[in-house]
Amino acid sequence: MPYQAERLPREKVFRDPVHNYIYVQHRLILDLINTKEFQRLRRIKQLGTASLVFHGAEHTRFTHSLGVYEITRRICDNFKRNYPSKTPGDGLWDDNERLVALCAALLHDIGHGPYSHTFEHIFHTDHEKITAEILTSPTTEVNQVLRSVSPEFPEQVASVIQKKYPNPQVVQMISSQIDADRMDYLLRDAYHTGTKYGTFDLTRILRVMRPYKDGIAFEVSGMHAVEDYIVSRFQMYQQIYFHPTSRSMEVILNHLLQRAKEDYSTGDNAHEAGAPYLLFPFFNHQFNLDDYLLLDDGTLTTYFAHWRQSSDPVLADLAHRFLDRKPLKSVRFNDETKNKIPMLRQLIEKAGFDAKYYTETNNSYDLPYDAYDPKMKKPMTQIELMQSDGHLIELSTVSALVSAITGKFSGDQRFFFPKEMLEDKQADVELFDPIYKSFQRHLHNDYII
Amino acid sequence: MPYQAERLPREKVFRDPVHNYIYVQHRLILDLINTKEFQRLRRIKQLGTASLVFHGAEHTRFTHSLGVYEITRRICDNFKRNYPSKTPGDGLWDDNERLVALCAALLHDIGHGPYSHTFEHIFHTDHEKITAEILTSPTTEVNQVLRSVSPEFPEQVASVIQKKYPNPQVVQMISSQIDADRMDYLLRDAYHTGTKYGTFDLTRILRVMRPYKDGIAFEVSGMHAVEDYIVSRFQMYQQIYFHPTSRSMEVILNHLLQRAKEDYSTGDNAHEAGAPYLLFPFFNHQFNLDDYLLLDDGTLTTYFAHWRQSSDPVLADLAHRFLDRKPLKSVRFNDETKNKIPMLRQLIEKAGFDAKYYTETNNSYDLPYDAYDPKMKKPMTQIELMQSDGHLIELSTVSALVSAITGKFSGDQRFFFPKEMLEDKQADVELFDPIYKSFQRHLHNDYII
Amino acid sequence: MPYQAERLPREKVFRDPVHNYIYVQHRLILDLINTKEFQRLRRIKQLGTASLVFHGAEHTRFTHSLGVYEITRRICDNFKRNYPSKTPGDGLWDDNERLVALCAALLHDIGHGPYSHTFEHIFHTDHEKITAEILTSPTTEVNQVLRSVSPEFPEQVASVIQKKYPNPQVVQMISSQIDADRMDYLLRDAYHTGTKYGTFDLTRILRVMRPYKDGIAFEVSGMHAVEDYIVSRFQMYQQIYFHPTSRSMEVILNHLLQRAKEDYSTGDNAHEAGAPYLLFPFFNHQFNLDDYLLLDDGTLTTYFAHWRQSSDPVLADLAHRFLDRKPLKSVRFNDETKNKIPMLRQLIEKAGFDAKYYTETNNSYDLPYDAYDPKMKKPMTQIELMQSDGHLIELSTVSALVSAITGKFSGDQRFFFPKEMLEDKQADVELFDPIYKSFQRHLHNDYII
Amino acid sequence: MPYQAERLPREKVFRDPVHNYIYVQHRLILDLINTKEFQRLRRIKQLGTASLVFHGAEHTRFTHSLGVYEITRRICDNFKRNYPSKTPGDGLWDDNERLVALCAALLHDIGHGPYSHTFEHIFHTDHEKITAEILTSPTTEVNQVLRSVSPEFPEQVASVIQKKYPNPQVVQMISSQIDADRMDYLLRDAYHTGTKYGTFDLTRILRVMRPYKDGIAFEVSGMHAVEDYIVSRFQMYQQIYFHPTSRSMEVILNHLLQRAKEDYSTGDNAHEAGAPYLLFPFFNHQFNLDDYLLLDDGTLTTYFAHWRQSSDPVLADLAHRFLDRKPLKSVRFNDETKNKIPMLRQLIEKAGFDAKYYTETNNSYDLPYDAYDPKMKKPMTQIELMQSDGHLIELSTVSALVSAITGKFSGDQRFFFPKEMLEDKQADVELFDPIYKSFQRHLHNDYII
Repeated sequence: MPYQAERLPREKVFRDPVHNYIYVQHRLILDLINTKEFQRLRRIKQLGTASLVFHGAEHTRFTHSLGVYEITRRICDNFKRNYPSKTPGDGLWDDNERLVALCAALLHDIGHGPYSHTFEHIFHTDHEKITAEILTSPTTEVNQVLRSVSPEFPEQVASVIQKKYPNPQVVQMISSQIDADRMDYLLRDAYHTGTKYGTFDLTRILRVMRPYKDGIAFEVSGMHAVEDYIVSRFQMYQQIYFHPTSRSMEVILNHLLQRAKEDYSTGDNAHEAGAPYLLFPFFNHQFNLDDYLLLDDGTLTTYFAHWRQSSDPVLADLAHRFLDRKPLKSVRFNDETKNKIPMLRQLIEKAGFDAKYYTETNNSYDLPYDAYDPKMKKPMTQIELMQSDGHLIELSTVSALVSAITGKFSGDQRFFFPKEMLEDKQADVELFDPIYKSFQRHLHNDYII
Repeated sequence: MPYQAERLPREKVFRDPVHNYIYVQHRLILDLINTKEFQRLRRIKQLGTASLVFHGAEHTRFTHSLGVYEITRRICDNFKRNYPSKTPGDGLWDDNERLVALCAALLHDIGHGPYSHTFEHIFHTDHEKITAEILTSPTTEVNQVLRSVSPEFPEQVASVIQKKYPNPQVVQMISSQIDADRMDYLLRDAYHTGTKYGTFDLTRILRVMRPYKDGIAFEVSGMHAVEDYIVSRFQMYQQIYFHPTSRSMEVILNHLLQRAKEDYSTGDNAHEAGAPYLLFPFFNHQFNLDDYLLLDDGTLTTYFAHWRQSSDPVLADLAHRFLDRKPLKSVRFNDETKNKIPMLRQLIEKAGFDAKYYTETNNSYDLPYDAYDPKMKKPMTQIELMQSDGHLIELSTVSALVSAITGKFSGDQRFFFPKEMLEDKQADVELFDPIYKSFQRHLHNDYII
Repeated sequence: MPYQAERLPREKVFRDPVHNYIYVQHRLILDLINTKEFQRLRRIKQLGTASLVFHGAEHTRFTHSLGVYEITRRICDNFKRNYPSKTPGDGLWDDNERLVALCAALLHDIGHGPYSHTFEHIFHTDHEKITAEILTSPTTEVNQVLRSVSPEFPEQVASVIQKKYPNPQVVQMISSQIDADRMDYLLRDAYHTGTKYGTFDLTRILRVMRPYKDGIAFEVSGMHAVEDYIVSRFQMYQQIYFHPTSRSMEVILNHLLQRAKEDYSTGDNAHEAGAPYLLFPFFNHQFNLDDYLLLDDGTLTTYFAHWRQSSDPVLADLAHRFLDRKPLKSVRFNDETKNKIPMLRQLIEKAGFDAKYYTETNNSYDLPYDAYDPKMKKPMTQIELMQSDGHLIELSTVSALVSAITGKFSGDQRFFFPKEMLEDKQADVELFDPIYKSFQRHLHNDYII
Repeated sequence: MPYQAERLPREKVFRDPVHNYIYVQHRLILDLINTKEFQRLRRIKQLGTASLVFHGAEHTRFTHSLGVYEITRRICDNFKRNYPSKTPGDGLWDDNERLVALCAALLHDIGHGPYSHTFEHIFHTDHEKITAEILTSPTTEVNQVLRSVSPEFPEQVASVIQKKYPNPQVVQMISSQIDADRMDYLLRDAYHTGTKYGTFDLTRILRVMRPYKDGIAFEVSGMHAVEDYIVSRFQMYQQIYFHPTSRSMEVILNHLLQRAKEDYSTGDNAHEAGAPYLLFPFFNHQFNLDDYLLLDDGTLTTYFAHWRQSSDPVLADLAHRFLDRKPLKSVRFNDETKNKIPMLRQLIEKAGFDAKYYTETNNSYDLPYDAYDPKMKKPMTQIELMQSDGHLIELSTVSALVSAITGKFSGDQRFFFPKEMLEDKQADVELFDPIYKSFQRHLHNDYII
């Protein structure tokens, strides 16, 4: 029997709090889960700094990846049962695509490292490129497993994740505005944070999904379930992913890694006890895949624990603020009040903080749903509803709620600064009192005024 | 206003998936949460190796500690509303005890380190002693916060955790057969593993709890809710805490740390890149509190990542088995089949494994509920039900289910060995085939025969 | 001790699937629950014909009324704890208002009869008037209990329900766009139908509610919880309350009661076995409160069971269609296609159906959220958010989602007709085939074309 | 295509709060659901008088029957996927049995009438016989649908329900100690009452179920899931089904129907307004199937509403106590205190109550789990676990919890009496005070002493 067709003698299950059970039927999938590259995802938190705000959200990318696999598996089952292709090109589901879809689902995040977003920003890594590399480099266990299917298989799986695979149904299962990835993380993040915003009716969405020649559509009778998903997604961004305190911890992390890079790239202190050996390749921007795969959340926090005792006071303080959770404060600003920020930065410098490391502006914007706009450089697939006569109709044309948030960026711009600036009495540092007062006069109702 | 009476201007909440919200009303509690010793608990998993079996169970001791605090807070609220003491010694609730109870609840696990059970076994640390030290040593932030209440307060809180505090109601809230600690971890572990065994009716149990002169009793009308809790606890032990694969990963961890201790205690390799600096004080058994507080799960796994590349093949292999999740297999044995184990070990040695590092026996026994037995060295508080005339009656005398499991150890004895011993074809190592076959003949239906 | 202050010796609880427990602390409340007028609500379904579509939704107005009481109780507790009035007129919460609020919450639906909406339409009853009558008529047990508080108390409670009570906080708890009534029914209907649309974060909404001089506002930090509630409400209307099949069963009920009224109002058949004695006062429009209080869902269906065997074929058929659940079918129409309806009715008549009893048009429109519009005859209270400086800001001005559905009627217009018109082969009634075909040509994609 | 093989063009779903969705794939099943005999189950509460104690439990036998169907469907799906029969008599699953299993599951309760238990006791009806009659009598719509499969099909379905069908797997799906019926009602009753006792892991139990030649067994690896189900069942009986207040309302119902039978069987008052025409055939014990099928919960309560105004004071009072929910009180007794009951009855008579209608003793006993006992007249199928070598082992031999409750009757004996006997001051009926006092002296801690 060819490897790819090999079924486990007995279906294996993983108990999962979100999907109840995750069902593994192919030896291939089990072998992928057991690779060291995949097991490494157990040591990388799904939500990064957001777990510092929502303490229950300590789940990892391992868990999420299994969930994306499971949703994809259920989509395939549904398509096979209800919309099996009879002749090539009939726009229905060809179940020979199942395995490439399942592998892409399971592995779509395998290139993620610790605190990816920030790490990439400082060290110019790219988790999407690394994902492709892990799949296609002959040195990895993942590649070795995938190669057992066929020599081309690793590239095929990679091309699904890169949205270049020829079958649009497979691509859209993994990457579209309503894909297995997004559906899993919304449900999972809602479950672990304990919020209710991210819940929607997965069973019903899966039920109304259907393949067609250009990808995946939804029966019009399921419009409200899809609408509910879009609204949930919007609310999760507003409430969880854009939370100011979480973004503030990311600002600290960013500055901490930046400072460490500056401190260590000279190499002078490379031999001291507790030097961050595993990060050196990144400080010098000469890393290979093996270097990357040694890193996880624990590696970074272990170095931070060393740095907390550093002789560089800024490095030590930023490490302390991150590990011991001392977030910066923030206020919103807009295009009119933006010009006040330099002045606020000056006040902060006066109060003794290096503005380069202790202030930041950032905005967090998400496009909650996007109907097709040919002018966009990288337009997202729009959500199509299929009517009873087979014609498609785009979601935002029938949903008032979705239409309301279509194509609109939501989010805010914030200015981050040390909490100390908001204190009202500073017995011990009376000196700064007038500076603080002056600073505070420019803030009102969470805005710079 | 004295510090201990200081209320937050606005009650603060933490969103929690198990209790919905955790309510903080005292500045003291918020200050304790913000200490570095408490924040460190974010980096220590609640369930250790069990998260390698139940992938959703990635929650930490931080989360659990907040939960124990919250349950204790609700008990105090209930007692204050329904059973306020009027005269000293009337056996009712004196709300002046609230603060010491809340602090003890929040801090009861603060001495835990990474993979405590195994770590303690290898390095002879003691998390209970360390808890007391963190509370009472003037060097910690926790002590500093507690001292602000009064010079004796740190010792008082510690004495609650050590069950020496004079008020038995406070002690039993935190430590008894049905305390805030157990109630939180059962619910929380059930939530994160996604199993249903650990669920019971917390609201109802809190409702039927009542103080009396010797501690805490339960109204007889709530008998079934208490019974359900005992049964849930029994089932969680059977299903989650005693899971053979989880125990097997702990065996590997145990042997890995043991081997590392042997490798590094000579000091020869203390200066190589990636040497486990933070563990040296423990290898030499000369550690202080600061050394201990630098450790967390990430520190250990970071060292394991280094060791996976060690020149000591046993150390490297054990590190690989732990990080990449390659559990040992196991079978049950009993007093009759115990004597076969030396022979099985010999077969394993023949197959090329060092039995010292690749086999183990362990049993996991729990006493699901214990009615008072004066002969026991350290008898547990029994669960008392209060009848409508005020008389007490012990739980197992009225519950058939509880009586069935009272005083009985449950659990099993297992022999752990490398998975390789179970393989049936070994094209590449045909050599070992007869050894494997011989080994396998002694196992049947999960037992040594 | 005055009756109103009388606490139960021990707080009584009712187990509730939505709120976990419902807590009763006053003897007054327990006495009201035990009146026969309140117990009667156990025999009146909350959702009427919707339970014929969502089979789990068999819950009654009794259950809902307890839930509204419980939410109101929690609001009062929160207000008392966090915003207690210190001086009259300070806009904070005066807990002397608690009892009138709790009674109004519990009794706000007490005037509902079986299938109220339809019943009122045919028999010109008015459940709001009857609610007031039950509270204030000396013949009821409810009035007797309320009078024990004070002679004016029944009128006071009635005035809250009628929105005439002077304290706007009390009125808005029970009747506003985000009141205890709506919050309970959304959660409860979602629970029993098994849909997820109606879930929102009740705990958080209660937490951000606060009294002010003109009623109840919400802290701006809770904006998203309020927004989520508005969206949930919108979705429940779309998905549950406006469901075409449920509306179709209501059309049948409407026509059935209409036909019965016509058949029986002559009085000729008043003495036959199984004559609907309890409905006669309504057929003749000469009913009193006692007549009304004898009716419940079971009374009507018992008569329907008799009518199913009636010699009037239309009455018998409509009774059969209702009891045995044979809904009419429906299609949407709009202002342009409206004029086709008379022609469709003619086809239906040709096929042998009396169009008066077998067709209907109806629209179901709801205003999902309404910002204040002084031109409206009966403007709804708008939802106000309170900023940190104390100023109010209206919800739709800050929420894109709410703004999208503010002041817009949602819903559709439908034409109802017998399912038979859609059949495609009628071996036995081949005669009608061309009529059916002709009829079907005017329908496409759920619309009249 | 033969009728039985006819699939719906599109699988139809019913939204269900317990199973999320109920999937209907055969036209046959949809046609059965649409019969008038099945729709009638919408008007018969699942839990009878227990809904007067647990107000959320207003669900009906309609809902439950759909649930039993759905669980059976899932079992068939699992058996077909994992254990398909290859040769007749191999002890595996023959999917030709699916339809008879599904029909039996759906229809197993179709013979239930209003408040069956009590109704049967008074009127000597038998819901099991009536179920068989509904299936096999040519006058019913159910029979007509079943006959479309084959002339023998109605009898086959009936024989499954009567446990006479030759295939033991089909029989045990519907009737055994762990069947689709019990599993649905435990989960559903737990959901609607809002208690947590009845929850167990349905998915896991379904997963470990497997057919074998003598019926259905469970893989030994699923032992704890099965154990948890047995314990849940035990607890639901203790907490919900045996609740004293619910039993007390059943006592009242029993006496009310008994009194009505006595009042109306003379026929004197058969022509008065509101006479219970639909019950006359039962008063005279001359009813046919059509008479029976006209009855539902609403019919009875409609007559009770008439009787509440009866000139017979006992009938009127009992009707009032039932409709307005005025339960009797009760105490436990045992074999030693049983002999005090006649004396207590005398006191009750002295206080003005007719002991025949106002007192009762009843016990409620359930055998929580029963290992095979050849001496029992009607032994229940025991629960068998299948080991990895294929051998069976009976559940109670490996589960300490199950063993504890195996073969033991649980429950209690209670004496019911009017609440008035417990009152302590009776300003208006001072006369009875000494009688009450004397009565109360014989009760202590919920027992007769």
